[in-house]
Amino acid sequence: MTKTRIILDTDPGADDALTILLMLASPEISLEGITTVHGNVPLEKTTRNALALLEFFDRKDIPVARGCSLPLIKAPHVENDNVHGTSGLGRTNLPEPTLQPVAAHAVDYLIQRFLAEPKELTLFAIGPLTNVALAIRQEPKFAEAIKEMVIMGGAIRSGGNMTPLAEFNIYEDPHAAHVVFNAGIPITLVPLDATYQCLLSSADVERLNRIDSPIPKFIRDVTADYMEFYLKYEGFSGCALHDPLTLAAIIAPQLLTLESHYVNVDISGGVSEGKTYADFMKVTKRPANMRVALDVKGREFVELFLERIEKFCAANAPTR
Amino acid sequence: MTKTRIILDTDPGADDALTILLMLASPEISLEGITTVHGNVPLEKTTRNALALLEFFDRKDIPVARGCSLPLIKAPHVENDNVHGTSGLGRTNLPEPTLQPVAAHAVDYLIQRFLAEPKELTLFAIGPLTNVALAIRQEPKFAEAIKEMVIMGGAIRSGGNMTPLAEFNIYEDPHAAHVVFNAGIPITLVPLDATYQCLLSSADVERLNRIDSPIPKFIRDVTADYMEFYLKYEGFSGCALHDPLTLAAIIAPQLLTLESHYVNVDISGGVSEGKTYADFMKVTKRPANMRVALDVKGREFVELFLERIEKFCAANAPTR
Amino acid sequence: MTKTRIILDTDPGADDALTILLMLASPEISLEGITTVHGNVPLEKTTRNALALLEFFDRKDIPVARGCSLPLIKAPHVENDNVHGTSGLGRTNLPEPTLQPVAAHAVDYLIQRFLAEPKELTLFAIGPLTNVALAIRQEPKFAEAIKEMVIMGGAIRSGGNMTPLAEFNIYEDPHAAHVVFNAGIPITLVPLDATYQCLLSSADVERLNRIDSPIPKFIRDVTADYMEFYLKYEGFSGCALHDPLTLAAIIAPQLLTLESHYVNVDISGGVSEGKTYADFMKVTKRPANMRVALDVKGREFVELFLERIEKFCAANAPTR
Amino acid sequence: MTKTRIILDTDPGADDALTILLMLASPEISLEGITTVHGNVPLEKTTRNALALLEFFDRKDIPVARGCSLPLIKAPHVENDNVHGTSGLGRTNLPEPTLQPVAAHAVDYLIQRFLAEPKELTLFAIGPLTNVALAIRQEPKFAEAIKEMVIMGGAIRSGGNMTPLAEFNIYEDPHAAHVVFNAGIPITLVPLDATYQCLLSSADVERLNRIDSPIPKFIRDVTADYMEFYLKYEGFSGCALHDPLTLAAIIAPQLLTLESHYVNVDISGGVSEGKTYADFMKVTKRPANMRVALDVKGREFVELFLERIEKFCAANAPTR
Repeated sequence: MTKTRIILDTDPGADDALTILLMLASPEISLEGITTVHGNVPLEKTTRNALALLEFFDRKDIPVARGCSLPLIKAPHVENDNVHGTSGLGRTNLPEPTLQPVAAHAVDYLIQRFLAEPKELTLFAIGPLTNVALAIRQEPKFAEAIKEMVIMGGAIRSGGNMTPLAEFNIYEDPHAAHVVFNAGIPITLVPLDATYQCLLSSADVERLNRIDSPIPKFIRDVTADYMEFYLKYEGFSGCALHDPLTLAAIIAPQLLTLESHYVNVDISGGVSEGKTYADFMKVTKRPANMRVALDVKGREFVELFLERIEKFCAANAPTR
Repeated sequence: MTKTRIILDTDPGADDALTILLMLASPEISLEGITTVHGNVPLEKTTRNALALLEFFDRKDIPVARGCSLPLIKAPHVENDNVHGTSGLGRTNLPEPTLQPVAAHAVDYLIQRFLAEPKELTLFAIGPLTNVALAIRQEPKFAEAIKEMVIMGGAIRSGGNMTPLAEFNIYEDPHAAHVVFNAGIPITLVPLDATYQCLLSSADVERLNRIDSPIPKFIRDVTADYMEFYLKYEGFSGCALHDPLTLAAIIAPQLLTLESHYVNVDISGGVSEGKTYADFMKVTKRPANMRVALDVKGREFVELFLERIEKFCAANAPTR
Repeated sequence: MTKTRIILDTDPGADDALTILLMLASPEISLEGITTVHGNVPLEKTTRNALALLEFFDRKDIPVARGCSLPLIKAPHVENDNVHGTSGLGRTNLPEPTLQPVAAHAVDYLIQRFLAEPKELTLFAIGPLTNVALAIRQEPKFAEAIKEMVIMGGAIRSGGNMTPLAEFNIYEDPHAAHVVFNAGIPITLVPLDATYQCLLSSADVERLNRIDSPIPKFIRDVTADYMEFYLKYEGFSGCALHDPLTLAAIIAPQLLTLESHYVNVDISGGVSEGKTYADFMKVTKRPANMRVALDVKGREFVELFLERIEKFCAANAPTR
Repeated sequence: MTKTRIILDTDPGADDALTILLMLASPEISLEGITTVHGNVPLEKTTRNALALLEFFDRKDIPVARGCSLPLIKAPHVENDNVHGTSGLGRTNLPEPTLQPVAAHAVDYLIQRFLAEPKELTLFAIGPLTNVALAIRQEPKFAEAIKEMVIMGGAIRSGGNMTPLAEFNIYEDPHAAHVVFNAGIPITLVPLDATYQCLLSSADVERLNRIDSPIPKFIRDVTADYMEFYLKYEGFSGCALHDPLTLAAIIAPQLLTLESHYVNVDISGGVSEGKTYADFMKVTKRPANMRVALDVKGREFVELFLERIEKFCAANAPTR
């Protein structure tokens, strides 16, 4: 089997942590580098978290490059009542990492990696798209060197979770998303339309915790604040697997309802700022520029997630 | 049975004509006045059509008031390849009406009618909302004198038919829609999400044409251009009953999936101009301001439509 | 001498009051009607003030029509620390008027008056343009029936007084201004570029108060809060004659530097909402649509104002 | 005398070429590096021109770094009837340069140079601000390492030359300008308000051509298309010294009327996109973030320019 070689652009973040874990637990995937970006928590924390996660998962071989601390144009959001907890990793308490980021900035790192092996690497982006947009603008050859890009972001038919129209990752840096969506990159977008149907329940977490491994406990701790938020606002004891679900595009595409559409982002200001829209009725007559996951067999993906974690725990001796 | 007393604000328009017909064919409805507005075709034509339709349907007793010829702020759309035909009534050829509009402008007519009988009349609006918005701004007591308002317009989860985000009636005068949506009127909105699921087929039209009456022939002629458009762009031999479906809110609400939401219109310019959105995730924390039809048992409504027309033809001697 | 026959659309307002006074004191002017609008203070107060001023100036023969209480689209501004005082007429204390507004709404009144005598009447607008915009949209023949329109509003090269870019009258209802500017009416615009150079000092007010008449005392009282505001923020003991200066377009055009330009209003939202701009470099290639007063011999106009008031006081027996 | 050490960000461009020449001809200035950017002509041409100019002026010691080829967010302008000629250098015909750009991208070059000598170098930017904005976003310490920034751009009271409100450099990449203006850098802005008053006449060019040197001939050729444009549209046989005038901020500040204001750029879309505005009336209550040149003794600067060029020609043996 040829593995899909991935560079992950991420802002860990509870579900980012689960995504890294699922990648490491998936035989189809080779995670070859991580770039960090502002988002769920500020850059210093997302970078620290990425490093700490790789140490915890015993994968210090994977390089981490520190990226942008601010959105391209917008002021960053003000944090309060963060569903990812103060640290970004819920109630986990990972030790301060000894691992250091590489010297290169994430923008330069992305340019170097993708230009070194054109059309070989897949770019997974599960945070605001600032790093990727800067790389596109700085190096015109960068976009065409990307084999495929998978993005968690947007709310097409679904309502937004930041404004009535906009989803967090896109809203946080709509201008960056606009640059990325219009750069000619082959994109698969996984928006809230799919991710909100992929719910990890507290019962699922308890099932995992029957295994004797620090990982299930980590999953319980990293999702604790998130699940509390859902219980409070949605009346559901669980949480959506927003970021991990993007991996379905590689490891279980049959679970996704993927349609090709012309998709873009509103960056004209006003109430629709950051709205990700599809031209369903083809009124613009523009060709499709990405595949969008508009539906998902959510429970089947959760089962797949649980099985992969269980196998990973069995295969890996505790990191103690 | 207490009839729902209706003032209809309309821009006939093929499906507007069918709406007037369905109203006259529905025992639950008392159509008590019509105001005309620019929209599917220019004001002179929509007014002429409203008058000609009432003559054709033998209901010269219903007063017609001529309204606004231009959107509140926007430039009107440029017409070409009109699905409503050059006259606005497809390939029908109704004689020039002898009936005249009332002296009062539609804005003054609306203010007078609703203030004369506060909370007694229902306002049905199936064109751009210019007349209603002007009445609201001119007379602060107008909005609260409306018992209920039913509006055909918007695309909530559905894609738009004018832009990727916007539906014709709202797009044509988004500022007017913004005024109307924010005036505190009890509103039921029937957007494309419902109307595009309510398709009259050419077979349905042929079924009606087994009756010996000028009305089925009128229906065939008035929908002919419309159906050709659908065949060309959607590969379906039929057309959506956008405007007639709004009447379901009165005569068959059980067919609609109605949800209460905070709904508003983007008037901030840019690609989302005229987008009608609902705050599904309650991120604005604003209270619901209308009921929205997000789904419909479309075929059941078409059957109801056909039965009503059949009964109406039987009950009414040919107008020859 | 043929008098310029004027209908005044106004939101009194301290400098609106001075404008009415200057009109009555000017032999070139025949003030034939007043329509009121929201603006400096809410509509109820501007209407009450217009009526009270006509009684105070002993001109109960001039009809007053009550107009719109809200801007076309925008939410009205929230009042605090009003330079026009709580009543809108500073520290004056005019008795409650016995005079009543006419039955017709200002919009209908404007339509009736201008259509009754096409191209005979000049429309003076020194408040937000809501009434005029509604009349234009309701009656397509209204705009062409206006002989000339003189408008106080906008900031072309000057900074704005509400935002860095926008002046109060235009900012308060930018959509209305957009309708008016684009209706083909012959317009003379008097923006802040001119009005802020036309300063009435407290010494000027004292000079007038040497006359034994209630009018100079009224002027002192009506400008008192205004002058306090200027002293506090501008370090100048006086106030700008924004609205009265518009009358220079009729009675002293030689004092104004008038240029013809294509002028429009930004209604696209964002920081420039309500910006009134001129296409000085003709980059749009659109023809000029109005004359704009970009400079003024300010002191000469103040002298003219003072002389007119002095003559008016001498000619009119005290109203006691 | 301590020289002002300058890194020049530029898109040559006829008046960019004159700016480089004036810098080399000014004893107060040490030009230590050039970064190129898209703008007057595409990046390949501006980079080629920068290199060719340094060869022509015999200053191959100055490093050139190639920068961004596209604006941050906007689509680039479509070129037609370019006042800078097809090559960007009018009718000059400089040989293809042998000099090569440095390996580093302009963004990395800027970051390296300014971080290597914090608060020592002045950044002169006379094209669209894309390079500088990217450097700011990539390296948070970049902005504070800049001693001073001098920018040619904007139209404050002046009309715009691209839209009624916007000037070319800012309009071409308004988002980049927004990033730069809000980064806390000490800025001196030289907008059209000043530059359009600084006119080089064809008589001035002829005066220079009395000198036996290839440089006056170069000046005649590089400004030829530009002057033709002015003659056609402005009826003036000459051209504005937009970019060279920025140097007055260093070599002749007494000729500029500099005021400190809060200045920003409209990036909210619509007709005011790219408008550079000052808060003259302090309505935002924000502190001044730059000095703006609102007026200039234009002729005195042109005389200074001519004298400097004459001295430079005398001092430098012909480059033949």
